[in-house]
Amino acid sequence: MKERDISFMQKAIRLARKGAGSVSPNPLVGAVVVKNNKIISEGFHRKAGLAHGEAEALDKAGLYAQKATLYVNLEPCCYFGRTPPCVDKIIKAGIKRVVIGTKDPNPKVDGRSIRKLRDHKIEVTNGVCREEAKKINEVFFKNMKERLPFVVAKTAQTLDGKIATSLGQSKWITTDKSRKFSRKLRDRYDAVLIGAKTLREDNPKLNGLKKKPYKVIISSSLDLPKNSYILKNFADKTIIFTLSKLKTKGDLPGPVKIFTLKKIKKGISLKQVLKKLYSYGIMSVFVEGGSYTLGRFFEEKMVDKVYFFIAPKICGGKNSITSVGATGVKKIEKCLRIQKLKIKKIGEDILIRGYLR
Amino acid sequence: MKERDISFMQKAIRLARKGAGSVSPNPLVGAVVVKNNKIISEGFHRKAGLAHGEAEALDKAGLYAQKATLYVNLEPCCYFGRTPPCVDKIIKAGIKRVVIGTKDPNPKVDGRSIRKLRDHKIEVTNGVCREEAKKINEVFFKNMKERLPFVVAKTAQTLDGKIATSLGQSKWITTDKSRKFSRKLRDRYDAVLIGAKTLREDNPKLNGLKKKPYKVIISSSLDLPKNSYILKNFADKTIIFTLSKLKTKGDLPGPVKIFTLKKIKKGISLKQVLKKLYSYGIMSVFVEGGSYTLGRFFEEKMVDKVYFFIAPKICGGKNSITSVGATGVKKIEKCLRIQKLKIKKIGEDILIRGYLR
Repeated sequence: MKERDISFMQKAIRLARKGAGSVSPNPLVGAVVVKNNKIISEGFHRKAGLAHGEAEALDKAGLYAQKATLYVNLEPCCYFGRTPPCVDKIIKAGIKRVVIGTKDPNPKVDGRSIRKLRDHKIEVTNGVCREEAKKINEVFFKNMKERLPFVVAKTAQTLDGKIATSLGQSKWITTDKSRKFSRKLRDRYDAVLIGAKTLREDNPKLNGLKKKPYKVIISSSLDLPKNSYILKNFADKTIIFTLSKLKTKGDLPGPVKIFTLKKIKKGISLKQVLKKLYSYGIMSVFVEGGSYTLGRFFEEKMVDKVYFFIAPKICGGKNSITSVGATGVKKIEKCLRIQKLKIKKIGEDILIRGYLR
Repeated sequence: MKERDISFMQKAIRLARKGAGSVSPNPLVGAVVVKNNKIISEGFHRKAGLAHGEAEALDKAGLYAQKATLYVNLEPCCYFGRTPPCVDKIIKAGIKRVVIGTKDPNPKVDGRSIRKLRDHKIEVTNGVCREEAKKINEVFFKNMKERLPFVVAKTAQTLDGKIATSLGQSKWITTDKSRKFSRKLRDRYDAVLIGAKTLREDNPKLNGLKKKPYKVIISSSLDLPKNSYILKNFADKTIIFTLSKLKTKGDLPGPVKIFTLKKIKKGISLKQVLKKLYSYGIMSVFVEGGSYTLGRFFEEKMVDKVYFFIAPKICGGKNSITSVGATGVKKIEKCLRIQKLKIKKIGEDILIRGYLR
């Protein structure tokens, strides 16, 4: 019984993942309806605004859902959003048992649906594949817990921690394969964030393989190259944070969004940036540098997850550019620790991933 | 037949390894004598000056060696050194067949023993487990090929490539386990090398777990802390390279060896350092930093192998100390590439090893 639950839940999780990159600000949800140990229907949340995963699976099952078991990676919702509450649909469909991966951390749900199902004499098993169920929705969990976007810091460095030579030359440190992997990561997140210097020096596109995420630029002075690729082509998807009080946008294209923040000791408060982005509906931010910007994110302890692509090369140089710059810690014991470390080879390169809290 | 050869050769290689750290300037050699598919005796080279591996195994086998097969990881010697030539001993013992891992690169041997054995109607199979046989004697192969010590560069850094904070604080980046592993590595090599700054700031012991290797210090100015641990306790094992022409040693203890080199553009020529060490009988050097010294070794392309211990921590900081300093390359395509990369977890830390050519 236990093993079957795990196997059906894993199926639900696999389905949920299919929505990755499309469902924000919603969580990823996959569901399977099972009767006599056979899957009779499946569903997943495809896009914000469309049906939730459970709703899709139940609609497909129709009357066959009666006395069936529903597997879903996240506790169903119990409130009216852009779609009606799934919990009512489950009750109405005549489901006998609901197996859940993890409780919905949304304060509007937070166990309420589980209680409601039980009140309706539906058997509920919660916590099957909990770790995995939480992990696929790590963005959503952060959002619900802290009302801030999930922040991913990414860098591509040499083994000795350099992202450019002392002359600023940086192309290319990692291989095509790593860079493609990195573009694929952009598909997962709502926005890509860089500092003004990276915009000036690299003139990047910041697109994913499939998606064109929002582009966020941190620029204290608002001194930006107007003919950069993203300002010319993606002005409507560009958000700039600045300290500059110039009310005119200068020559910046009309659709660009500019937020002027109050100066803190170190310049721009990244917590303020993240709060603004969250209120703007951006649930996850992929921070791609450069050195100073990444350094500031670590200093403000605003990073949730890291992706370090490491090329097996030695650059050397006291004045070469380090992957994580800014001020840094004063004592080694104050270093930020990376947990749940995973190491993977990507072609010739090494990818080190992990979490910061 | 082939499989048996491989299995007996692997046994010989395992025996050879037992001499690691003790046989310099000789190669590691292990040997087994096999008759009717059974090992009748084993031997390995234990220490420079003592019997070679083949000699030990043949002595143990005595008359039983007649018509037996001898497995040895390196071509036997054919000249009088501190012991008589092994090839003659093999012929005299009545060995029928000799299986060799790899040819001896020593210009005094270089296939001569193989020819001599064949001339005496002894069947010779060369190249069984050749890669492994070469690898265990990587120090010896470099020595014979270039008449220079084998150079290993080691560092212990944060994930972002720092070995100390901007205040110079560096204790400890990696865990006890990594540091113990690193001390064990010192047992393998003839000398440990550091820059004067590391001597001043860390006052290290530079000992292995079992061995007290030579301690080499690079100090342009000869301005060294006289009461440092190694100058006080290991003066007889300390070698200093300097540009200072002060003929007096100042307060440096008597047994310390000082070599004054001619200044090149970048200060001290590391090639000159290595040549001197080689002529002094030091066949391998474990370079432990700091930042500048490691940087210089890479710049001069004098490194054969690297050990990067990486702690899963972020230090950050433009002015933190980088693992590989000095000037560095000007263009990314000039980075030194690390080959035959191996990645290993040591407790919480990551060890990345590889070769430079």
